[in-house]
Amino acid sequence: MHEDNQARVTHSYDGTAMLQSLPDAVIYPGSTEEVSRIMKVLNQHRIPLVSRGSGTNLCGGTVPVQGGVVMVMHRMNRILEVDLDNLTATVQPGLNTKVFNEYVEELGLFYPPDPSSMAISTIGGNIAECSGGLRGLKYGTTKDYVLGLEAVLPSGEIIRTGGKLMKDVAGYDLTKLFIRSEGTLAVITEAILRLVPPPVHKKTMLAMYRDLASAARTVSSIIASRIIPATLEILDNPTIRVVDEFAGLGLPLDMEAILLIEQDGDPELVERDIESIHRICIGQKAAQVTVAANDEEAKRLLTARRSAFTALARLRPTTILEDATVPRSKIAEMVVEINRIAKRHNVTICTFGHAGDGNLHPTATTDARDKEEIIRVEEAFEEIFEATLALGGTITGEHGVGLLKSPYLEWKIGEAGVGIMKGIKEVFDPNGIMNPGKMFAKAARRRVVINRA
Amino acid sequence: MHEDNQARVTHSYDGTAMLQSLPDAVIYPGSTEEVSRIMKVLNQHRIPLVSRGSGTNLCGGTVPVQGGVVMVMHRMNRILEVDLDNLTATVQPGLNTKVFNEYVEELGLFYPPDPSSMAISTIGGNIAECSGGLRGLKYGTTKDYVLGLEAVLPSGEIIRTGGKLMKDVAGYDLTKLFIRSEGTLAVITEAILRLVPPPVHKKTMLAMYRDLASAARTVSSIIASRIIPATLEILDNPTIRVVDEFAGLGLPLDMEAILLIEQDGDPELVERDIESIHRICIGQKAAQVTVAANDEEAKRLLTARRSAFTALARLRPTTILEDATVPRSKIAEMVVEINRIAKRHNVTICTFGHAGDGNLHPTATTDARDKEEIIRVEEAFEEIFEATLALGGTITGEHGVGLLKSPYLEWKIGEAGVGIMKGIKEVFDPNGIMNPGKMFAKAARRRVVINRA
Repeated sequence: MHEDNQARVTHSYDGTAMLQSLPDAVIYPGSTEEVSRIMKVLNQHRIPLVSRGSGTNLCGGTVPVQGGVVMVMHRMNRILEVDLDNLTATVQPGLNTKVFNEYVEELGLFYPPDPSSMAISTIGGNIAECSGGLRGLKYGTTKDYVLGLEAVLPSGEIIRTGGKLMKDVAGYDLTKLFIRSEGTLAVITEAILRLVPPPVHKKTMLAMYRDLASAARTVSSIIASRIIPATLEILDNPTIRVVDEFAGLGLPLDMEAILLIEQDGDPELVERDIESIHRICIGQKAAQVTVAANDEEAKRLLTARRSAFTALARLRPTTILEDATVPRSKIAEMVVEINRIAKRHNVTICTFGHAGDGNLHPTATTDARDKEEIIRVEEAFEEIFEATLALGGTITGEHGVGLLKSPYLEWKIGEAGVGIMKGIKEVFDPNGIMNPGKMFAKAARRRVVINRA
Repeated sequence: MHEDNQARVTHSYDGTAMLQSLPDAVIYPGSTEEVSRIMKVLNQHRIPLVSRGSGTNLCGGTVPVQGGVVMVMHRMNRILEVDLDNLTATVQPGLNTKVFNEYVEELGLFYPPDPSSMAISTIGGNIAECSGGLRGLKYGTTKDYVLGLEAVLPSGEIIRTGGKLMKDVAGYDLTKLFIRSEGTLAVITEAILRLVPPPVHKKTMLAMYRDLASAARTVSSIIASRIIPATLEILDNPTIRVVDEFAGLGLPLDMEAILLIEQDGDPELVERDIESIHRICIGQKAAQVTVAANDEEAKRLLTARRSAFTALARLRPTTILEDATVPRSKIAEMVVEINRIAKRHNVTICTFGHAGDGNLHPTATTDARDKEEIIRVEEAFEEIFEATLALGGTITGEHGVGLLKSPYLEWKIGEAGVGIMKGIKEVFDPNGIMNPGKMFAKAARRRVVINRA
């Protein structure tokens, strides 16, 4: 247990801009049994607990807003087993995502979830948030790769769900309930993950568009042609400009949108899909289509997308990366709407994201010290969430609810839905010590429907 | 509302042997609003409700053991929309699974879940039980294809979860919580399902083995070679004999096990995988390997597996089809254990199932009128569940808990787990009217660990 100032300050914030709150202490458990013993004490004394990995989340999910103890899982970072017959891995929550990805790759296997934070993030954090990534379209997200969990309840009891099992319907799906529960129900102490055979071949391409609608139509056409690419990302014009300035890629700055597309799998299949996609891009009036000739060139094309956040973060002191998801057929409408809202509120919002999933990341570059501007940014995002829902979308596709989205949860799931979720939370955590203040807001935000006419 | 005897008797049982209980009335709602109005009345008067589709489940999940009302969803059987841009279908729960599969196939799309009961079962029932099927290994089960749900709570409130969204992390995963909840939480009134591009090519083969261990090693070797077949089924010797007698397939009766293997996808890939699998089968001492030359022959090979239940059902008056799942590397141990247990209790148990999933269906042919034999069958199954868990498996892979497995739920998930599940049930259904008596037994069965030495 560390009560020194340095550890407390280090764990007073996470990847989310503008949020900070000091915990009273920081603790680093080394085993499930230690977690269990700690939980019993905290629960008995009603001490708030925030369990966390590297804190890369973008929803304020691990800021200890009510003080108490921050439990950092970094010491529990072992790969306990890779089972080659069952294609599973059993790991501890503090394991770094990229370390794990590379470890299984060495064994000729593949763990697809690839959140942008994977170089820093942990598997436990990925499970708590149900992290997505660039490969979500074809491979799904973290939820699709967790077969079983060990978790410690606030009471200190240890629960084990699922197993090395492709099928298990013994009672309610507690495994899936723990995934994306954001540390509000239990502390995850072990996970059984599903591994898959890796694709043997990959091809990468960029398609550039003079208008956004054509880019969006391309996304729909690809899916409607029964092709599911491994990656299908979009960057809008403001993002293209910023990325190009940052990475010096020589991107054409007059383009309204760029699509980054990857397909993987067997060579014949990849070649055929990339050819079909190429034809679709041209048919939808792409101004320019570039297929990477080799891995080197593919990496350069990927840089455009991978560096988006970093490039945007250089522009101004504060970067707010949001997470709006719509049905993928609504991508164009959504980007147009975001740009319209940004203009109306006189704020800079660049949009990029996982077009194939309908998962966009409108990102505001602003300055936390400018209170007046921050209010305008918040108003703009509130309208963006409203527009997302109006298009059949959700308030968060992969970042989580945490603190930031809690006032909007009811917009998505309704009063009855929030009531049920609060009830579930109380079943696990009757004393309300697990990540208090997250997911459920004191009061839901009033939803103002904006007239767009 | 029907209170006549015929409707009551018709809905007093389901696909499970030896269970029957008369409801007081049977009701056929026509819309979500009707379901909502009915629920309010039932909840107010504390009247038990069993919602059901065709009742093909094998766990006694829809037997109205406490009387009350049976709500049959067959009138709500429409396909409301197929969205070709988003590759989703929105359907009502009473829709027949096979009708739906064929409908989307006509549109050039694919809905993979294929429970053996699909000719009769409904989508709502599939969701309530998280139905699997022969394609589970490669394509997953029902849970992997439900993107969103509309459900009516016991209070009559209507809740909507998820959407036409590939990603959604807005609060706890209520969609997944409703899946496999067996009608104990809410009545599902609408579902948004994910469709995928269909495989363009398929190839089927049979491999026959003089010993079981070789067949099981083949299963592990295929998976360990990074090949995930679309179907990977096993039939043991007693099943082979019965099936051959029933269908006149000319199967060699001296074989200890047959594997039925299918691969689908792009032609080159299918050919290559089938060749590799062929080599693995021979390497693992298959006595005979037959690759179907055409669709006709493939269908004949599939008949061996598809007719297993029907063939077994002809043998004796009562057929009890069970559902034990283990890590797939433990298949051989499990089949050996099942045969040993059957012999010890002097009962006939044939085993077939989804070897690639580790999901076996040990099936007892018996006679419900012979009370003494039935007790021996039950004792044998109890030992089989125990053996399943000892091998890291679960009490049910795809049939559900219902009435039959409720005494064993605690064996899998522990006392704390059952406590949490009961708590969740109470959040949704404080008056305990939703499918009462299911999933949770009055008392857990005492677990006796059998000494196998």
